[in-house]
Amino acid sequence: MAHDEHVVIAGAGLAGALLAVDLARMGYRVDLYERRPDPRQAGYIGGRSINLALSVRGLTALAEVGLDAPVLEDAIRMPGRMLHDAQGDLTFQAYSHDPADAINSVSRGGLNITLLDAADAEPNVAIHFDERCVDADLDETIAVFKNNATGEVTQVKADCIVGADGAFSAIRAPMMRTDRFDYSQTYLRHGYKELVIPPAIEIEGADPTKHDGFAIEPNALHIWPRGGSMMIALPNADKSFTCTLFWPFEGDHAFESIDPNDAASVRAFFTLHYPDAVPVMPTLTDDYSRNPVSSLVTVRCDPWHRNRTVLVGDAAHAIVPFFGQGMNAAFEDVRVLCSLLREDGGFDRVLPAYSEARKANADAIADMALDNFIEMRDTVADEEFLYRKRVEQALHGSMPERAQPLYNLVSFSNIPYDEAREKGRALGRIVARVAERLPRQEAALLTDDAWNERVVSIGRELLGA
Amino acid sequence: MAHDEHVVIAGAGLAGALLAVDLARMGYRVDLYERRPDPRQAGYIGGRSINLALSVRGLTALAEVGLDAPVLEDAIRMPGRMLHDAQGDLTFQAYSHDPADAINSVSRGGLNITLLDAADAEPNVAIHFDERCVDADLDETIAVFKNNATGEVTQVKADCIVGADGAFSAIRAPMMRTDRFDYSQTYLRHGYKELVIPPAIEIEGADPTKHDGFAIEPNALHIWPRGGSMMIALPNADKSFTCTLFWPFEGDHAFESIDPNDAASVRAFFTLHYPDAVPVMPTLTDDYSRNPVSSLVTVRCDPWHRNRTVLVGDAAHAIVPFFGQGMNAAFEDVRVLCSLLREDGGFDRVLPAYSEARKANADAIADMALDNFIEMRDTVADEEFLYRKRVEQALHGSMPERAQPLYNLVSFSNIPYDEAREKGRALGRIVARVAERLPRQEAALLTDDAWNERVVSIGRELLGA
Repeated sequence: MAHDEHVVIAGAGLAGALLAVDLARMGYRVDLYERRPDPRQAGYIGGRSINLALSVRGLTALAEVGLDAPVLEDAIRMPGRMLHDAQGDLTFQAYSHDPADAINSVSRGGLNITLLDAADAEPNVAIHFDERCVDADLDETIAVFKNNATGEVTQVKADCIVGADGAFSAIRAPMMRTDRFDYSQTYLRHGYKELVIPPAIEIEGADPTKHDGFAIEPNALHIWPRGGSMMIALPNADKSFTCTLFWPFEGDHAFESIDPNDAASVRAFFTLHYPDAVPVMPTLTDDYSRNPVSSLVTVRCDPWHRNRTVLVGDAAHAIVPFFGQGMNAAFEDVRVLCSLLREDGGFDRVLPAYSEARKANADAIADMALDNFIEMRDTVADEEFLYRKRVEQALHGSMPERAQPLYNLVSFSNIPYDEAREKGRALGRIVARVAERLPRQEAALLTDDAWNERVVSIGRELLGA
Repeated sequence: MAHDEHVVIAGAGLAGALLAVDLARMGYRVDLYERRPDPRQAGYIGGRSINLALSVRGLTALAEVGLDAPVLEDAIRMPGRMLHDAQGDLTFQAYSHDPADAINSVSRGGLNITLLDAADAEPNVAIHFDERCVDADLDETIAVFKNNATGEVTQVKADCIVGADGAFSAIRAPMMRTDRFDYSQTYLRHGYKELVIPPAIEIEGADPTKHDGFAIEPNALHIWPRGGSMMIALPNADKSFTCTLFWPFEGDHAFESIDPNDAASVRAFFTLHYPDAVPVMPTLTDDYSRNPVSSLVTVRCDPWHRNRTVLVGDAAHAIVPFFGQGMNAAFEDVRVLCSLLREDGGFDRVLPAYSEARKANADAIADMALDNFIEMRDTVADEEFLYRKRVEQALHGSMPERAQPLYNLVSFSNIPYDEAREKGRALGRIVARVAERLPRQEAALLTDDAWNERVVSIGRELLGA
């Protein structure tokens, strides 16, 4: 299956590297250009990154090239959320009725290196580091790169150019200047800052035997929901956690509320709002003062192609990180694009079909990611919200196919995002009606079994099942 | 009042030229750069332009520099819409109960020349033609221009840079690359093409004495509403009309429906859908084949400034032309910016205040312009719509201050656009309730006076007046 067709990919991040492997296996000649140095020599210089939660969509795409199992080996399972309230009390909330369902904390740097190694192992992939994409000629299908060290400019003509070069894509820039190309970039009024919970052994007074060497429960995505603001923490393979603050830039409980260099104020603020975290964050005030505040952007465009140039991943649809779907959606782009190419092979037909197929799905996950921020920071600790989650999972448990919650459809299935959103919302309306007919005050009077039976019976009636 | 401060304006179109005059009168030193040649020597080379409807906001801004009266001298009053139905029957719909209210058809080229002459007459304005803006340094307040003829690049440092360089602003490009700058460009699925109705004297069989030399009524904005599509015509001083088709690119009654070079098909299509226009369009098939189809874009961004660089007009808020407010909104930007500078003078305080003050208003008129397209093409010929317009104007006639219709507030007042929208919508709800209580079927049984009395009485009751 040798096409002898030549694809140039701008960006050897997660989506670009995976696409290179997949295309190479299909017989395409691939040149993969990356503006950064080779992370395998230079050490990983990512953009400042939020930890990645790998779920079914990402795993399905990795499985196409046999990389799902090796990647999962280094991942840490997170079958649910651990909620930390303002008193330091904990509640574990499983993501799914099915204990096999979990999202997986992975290192962006490690995953990128795995994918680059796989691309390097393909004889028809050439990787070019330190080459910054500076322009593209969409009529001639020529991408232009400039070497960071030598300043040398290279024009590369290809049969297809792929922009896998992230939220601020250079390939997208000339597309934006073409007629009837819709585009938007919208920043959140919240920013983020990373902090760290080191391994238990590095924390005075912590018990390194309690959580397998971690300072807190490793098999969970930790959330400190505080209304308009929150902190989260994801486990790393080295038994540390990367914590991320999501606070407004301005207003209450905001980055402007504290002078980052005033250690006493920082400590006082965290002691008030995140009391159980302070004892496991020995470098808190240093980290807070040293680490930058970064912004969060949603990018949308339409279409995702012009002639034989096409976008994948963040270049086409940068989303906020609150559903843990950025990488998963990017990998799904790669899987769908390659699957269309396998069916047809003609870029002129496949690129419009790919754009058409993916656009509504990317819009859906972009919206759901924004919605999930509100869920995570505001409602996740609300009694009624927790009760409805319980109803939802009870229905899901008794009717796994008929009653699939939004979170499960997004994280534990490959159903297109826009369909997942529609189905998830429909179930949400059923759950609300069940909770009206069997309110949580009444639920408290029932045994778990009796409650479950009632919930399922009302749910079946409403679903007509 | 000599500031000795230096302002560089990119773009000597309508907004840029007016701003130059206004700033010069305040004592600023102004350098006005324009990528096109001087239209007074070269003849006017506009972008392809839809005729301009000058209304109160634009006139108010022109009055600040004494140019309202001279501009109105060459304008043609349009106190209402003339609706052409598919049978060629006409209905005149006045814009206002007050016969003094009218919008004014002006030539973009003529108005631009008037403004350039005024700018040239100011000793502290220098105009530089054939200089294309290619970049700006927002930290150093430096704009970079490249001469079209010589290729020479000039860097100009200023106290303030103004991007008045239109929907595809070069000044905005570096702003877009700064953190937390929201931006969107959204194309309509409709495009436009210009046609012409020549003076009566050039049309075989037309009576040049009937409409003062025009082929159809000159004192009206003509609309041929056809559901998803429409044609409009605005009068020109030379007794011709510029007609504009607004049709979808694809679908029914769309540009793709007809082969532009098939004169028989073009004529048949127009004879079917625009029967009364065909006899006054002798060059129809040539014009249709020769003239391009152009796209329509809405551009929004936020904020409108970075440091000491700021946007006015289309550069900040390109809108679709269906409310005739693009130029008026741009002139209002100029008026508000200059008024803030008169009060304060400090760019560092004024630019954020200007951006803050204008953003919501620009969003409001952008939305209303999109809404008005639907009104013009779909509902303007609907019986119930016409009845409600009659109710609205009856209420406005009896309570000119309390009951101000949206169209009047936008076109015949200087009330901020967002306030106009809110007030106009509130009146719209009252009108709907009046029309429910006195339906048009009943209205037909009443004399005009009796109907008017009933409408006003119900309206007063609902308004609590």
